[in-house]
Amino acid sequence: MAAIITLTTDFGLEDPYGAAVKGVILSINPDALIVDVSHQVEPFNILQGAFLLGYCYTFFPKDAIHVAVVDPGVGTERRGILLATPQGSFIGPDNGIFSYVLRDAPGFHAPRGGPRPTQVPVPRAWRAYSLTEPRFWRHPVSSTFHGRDIFAPVAAHLSRGVKPEEMGRSVPLVTYLPVAEPRWRGSRMEGRVVHVDCFGNLITNIPGSRVIGKEVQVEVAGKRIQGISSAYLGRGELVATVGSHEHLELARPMGSAAAYLRAKVGDLVKVVRK
Amino acid sequence: MAAIITLTTDFGLEDPYGAAVKGVILSINPDALIVDVSHQVEPFNILQGAFLLGYCYTFFPKDAIHVAVVDPGVGTERRGILLATPQGSFIGPDNGIFSYVLRDAPGFHAPRGGPRPTQVPVPRAWRAYSLTEPRFWRHPVSSTFHGRDIFAPVAAHLSRGVKPEEMGRSVPLVTYLPVAEPRWRGSRMEGRVVHVDCFGNLITNIPGSRVIGKEVQVEVAGKRIQGISSAYLGRGELVATVGSHEHLELARPMGSAAAYLRAKVGDLVKVVRK
Amino acid sequence: MAAIITLTTDFGLEDPYGAAVKGVILSINPDALIVDVSHQVEPFNILQGAFLLGYCYTFFPKDAIHVAVVDPGVGTERRGILLATPQGSFIGPDNGIFSYVLRDAPGFHAPRGGPRPTQVPVPRAWRAYSLTEPRFWRHPVSSTFHGRDIFAPVAAHLSRGVKPEEMGRSVPLVTYLPVAEPRWRGSRMEGRVVHVDCFGNLITNIPGSRVIGKEVQVEVAGKRIQGISSAYLGRGELVATVGSHEHLELARPMGSAAAYLRAKVGDLVKVVRK
Repeated sequence: MAAIITLTTDFGLEDPYGAAVKGVILSINPDALIVDVSHQVEPFNILQGAFLLGYCYTFFPKDAIHVAVVDPGVGTERRGILLATPQGSFIGPDNGIFSYVLRDAPGFHAPRGGPRPTQVPVPRAWRAYSLTEPRFWRHPVSSTFHGRDIFAPVAAHLSRGVKPEEMGRSVPLVTYLPVAEPRWRGSRMEGRVVHVDCFGNLITNIPGSRVIGKEVQVEVAGKRIQGISSAYLGRGELVATVGSHEHLELARPMGSAAAYLRAKVGDLVKVVRK
Repeated sequence: MAAIITLTTDFGLEDPYGAAVKGVILSINPDALIVDVSHQVEPFNILQGAFLLGYCYTFFPKDAIHVAVVDPGVGTERRGILLATPQGSFIGPDNGIFSYVLRDAPGFHAPRGGPRPTQVPVPRAWRAYSLTEPRFWRHPVSSTFHGRDIFAPVAAHLSRGVKPEEMGRSVPLVTYLPVAEPRWRGSRMEGRVVHVDCFGNLITNIPGSRVIGKEVQVEVAGKRIQGISSAYLGRGELVATVGSHEHLELARPMGSAAAYLRAKVGDLVKVVRK
Repeated sequence: MAAIITLTTDFGLEDPYGAAVKGVILSINPDALIVDVSHQVEPFNILQGAFLLGYCYTFFPKDAIHVAVVDPGVGTERRGILLATPQGSFIGPDNGIFSYVLRDAPGFHAPRGGPRPTQVPVPRAWRAYSLTEPRFWRHPVSSTFHGRDIFAPVAAHLSRGVKPEEMGRSVPLVTYLPVAEPRWRGSRMEGRVVHVDCFGNLITNIPGSRVIGKEVQVEVAGKRIQGISSAYLGRGELVATVGSHEHLELARPMGSAAAYLRAKVGDLVKVVRK
């Protein structure tokens, strides 16, 4: 069956780790259609991997299988997980890598508290399975590469029609890694830069719906921007717009806002209503 | 239908923009065979993207669909275009990204003048369509990512058999971004470095046919090279050869001519007949 | 036929050389399933390419075709070769790029001597063919890009069922580029770092079977590590483990052992039994 399997990892593109994963998948399901989301997640940066997958899974068919492997805890007690959702299947370590997908689930409420991983209930329309069935794994299982030996073969078997519930036991909780949420302080919304893309655009966590069509002033890194542009307009200007992420984005057309502002992930962005 | 769709972009490989494009294509045509030409065009460098696509489109079947997205003008008045040619279909912004393909068309004459984009007639055997039919787009259309919301779905629908003329209205002119052309000055030909590849080879705009089998001396960055080598011969030497681009190329076998000469795109290269 | 063709090259990802190879393959066999192993082998580093392919070919089906092009000698007398083995087919320059595959062959004995390439007998269960039949090539053949004009079309024709023996004449010897082998000095084994991966893990040439379950001390770059960890355990610690390469590996969980030790390929690693 020609099922789509996407890969989001921190393996890089020089090493043959991604190719090993693909070989394992194709050995089990020669008809799998494998699509790279990114192999250039910063090593061990779970939240960045979660963000990148969170951006693009919605563009794939709802029967696609998304494998994500940013897995600093490989070989420890952290479990592997399979999430069966109406938006696709998700396979990887249960370390928060699917936090942005979780956040999109109807009825999901981000838990209060700090930046530490926390257990949250599996959303109502989802099912979660702990990967406990070794018969769907590659053996011997390396203690340093579950992407190749557990997640890849589980994805391949799933793509061939093995039922999710055969992969392991159902679990009620799943790990959520808190993502930065914007908050109101009076007439002011405070958000954060959550991603810097390759063009130097600063993607924030402020939903586009909060700023589009409104009279606002945006403050970032000591600069003030008046109003929201409809696109990347004004070469060399610093502009605020709602980009393809559907969130407030700061850009410098034909240049890099990140370089211009020396901005980075985590930086504060304020929106003031006028 | 298993149609080939190639992608040439400046999206980089870290961000999930290329994956979003692939998800959109596969959601419309699950049988599309997507091939990356390059996602590492320098941001906004239309001419570099044009060069890279120009190098490789001829190696694909003539029914392949080539999507190119280096699109600094996204969200402005620049139109999207579909070129239906005997060598394949080309989809992207009408900003000159297909200049090298245009240049290959029988009967094409480069317009005189400076380096600015100019409108040229659509070659005789081609048809050009302005992308004006929103029913083949993804909605809502982001003002910052037509690659995902217009060019990808148009390519996918085309690959499923939608006729080019259904995508929009036929247009008589298309944008050409002048590429550097070599010229004769007496017995001397003056050309330019038009690409530096990852080996540090300097690809010029001087056609191989002008130098092959001829007694010539090549001058570049203050160095003189006698004769044309049949291959990358002579470790550590600076050699002139006709590479796989079918143009005069300067190389340093087992090393980098670019690093050795501190050369870059735009540098002058002279060929003198002896 | 949906045959798998993998690519291991030093073409990089910016240039369209890999895409040209794919276009040539798909023009001959539109059903070929092409998988990138790596295009980021260091330019001209045959041994690194050999290592990367050596790591991952075993994860692919045994009828996969592996094309490897790290080819500083392109255009010289070095021949092209096709190796038909029980573990897959291998196509590329006969310059040692398949040394790690050779080393895995039953009965293979590494020749004594220095680091220079040497001719070794083709393993018993293998067949080797010098690529001498131009009818399976793309013409005209560039003297600088046999990957595109010879290896790609030969792989594509092979994937369509052309017999290996049609591609050229059978040869009894194949080029082997000596890979570093560990050796015993009394109770001490001396090995080398043979690869630094993108996480900064140092992969050595010391087989995991030599150290697993044994009381050993590992010495590298002036540091001593007691015992073998079962995984990447101990954030910020320097640990020795047997990684997915099935060889002794030095790692720094959540960090880079390479950066911490300023270590590189070729560095000495000692294992002392206690």
